[in-house]
Amino acid sequence: MEILKERLRKEGIIKNQEQLLIDGFLDCQFDIELFNELGKEFKRRFADLEVTKILTIESSGIALSCITAQYFHVPVVYARKTRVFSEDEEVYIAEYLSAKTKTMQNIMVPKKLIDEHDKVLLIDDVLETGCALAALYEIVVNAGALVSGAGVAIEKAFYSGGEVLREIGTRLESLVIIESMDAEDGTFVFR
Amino acid sequence: MEILKERLRKEGIIKNQEQLLIDGFLDCQFDIELFNELGKEFKRRFADLEVTKILTIESSGIALSCITAQYFHVPVVYARKTRVFSEDEEVYIAEYLSAKTKTMQNIMVPKKLIDEHDKVLLIDDVLETGCALAALYEIVVNAGALVSGAGVAIEKAFYSGGEVLREIGTRLESLVIIESMDAEDGTFVFR
Repeated sequence: MEILKERLRKEGIIKNQEQLLIDGFLDCQFDIELFNELGKEFKRRFADLEVTKILTIESSGIALSCITAQYFHVPVVYARKTRVFSEDEEVYIAEYLSAKTKTMQNIMVPKKLIDEHDKVLLIDDVLETGCALAALYEIVVNAGALVSGAGVAIEKAFYSGGEVLREIGTRLESLVIIESMDAEDGTFVFR
Repeated sequence: MEILKERLRKEGIIKNQEQLLIDGFLDCQFDIELFNELGKEFKRRFADLEVTKILTIESSGIALSCITAQYFHVPVVYARKTRVFSEDEEVYIAEYLSAKTKTMQNIMVPKKLIDEHDKVLLIDDVLETGCALAALYEIVVNAGALVSGAGVAIEKAFYSGGEVLREIGTRLESLVIIESMDAEDGTFVFR
């Protein structure tokens, strides 16, 4: 997706071979006009998909999911990382290794928010190890619902996440796939 | 705002005099169509306001902020509760008492994302003690920027947050103000 590649070339800061700073438009600050283009593109690529709900994980995934949901006309549910639910609230729990904090974390979704009739589209901003998306996948399966597909804005192909998700049969759409990045001259190789 | 009152009457679960469960449409699951109505209403109420940026706090505030930003044509910045920034990233920090976890927490915003030219609209979903909004306010002031106003979907008037924010001179717009709620018969008194 050219518009996103262009933005990465202009504003993405390559810290090293693996780390990319995109907090000016995709991560900590959201360019909502850009997000609308990304949302439209998800809808174009998943035009044939039946979707009743978008599921994401806090925090930055929420922004892209909400803008994208407007093109699918479905609500957004997000998995929480801390338990703020009341005692009597039944939740689905899945565990994953957080790339940011390097610790095992639980994510939780109230049981009442996903059921066996749901066809769920998973959305996140960046795909690295895929641990977060795999945990969302597990929650959907435990709810007896269907994972329709998964969409990410940026896939870093030098991590295994994309490969793992495709292997388990997920229909994954990555709007931009980065094969490699060079911190010295600030260039990307896109797939 | 009648549409939101109606939704509270139908789907809000009053746990006790202070606690309200709205995770079916405003908190953990987002009804994006409703959010568009809320965003439009913020724009109507703040029609005369100069806004260059919307600032919110993770996580659920992000959803309402992103949809609302479409009516103001500005980007959204969110304050993080955990430090995931790189070592060399300069951040504004403010401390607040979290109503959910009952502990003092830091929130952080990269310095490069707000500057003295910004006119900032603060957005959040629910206003109780106002501690989170006050911390956002502090960050904007420390950045030398201006707080144009603050908008919340629901203000619980039996907490002091609304009063405190108005006292410090914030132009606060609450789309629905709950004076009291009755857990026994499930009714609300709106202002």
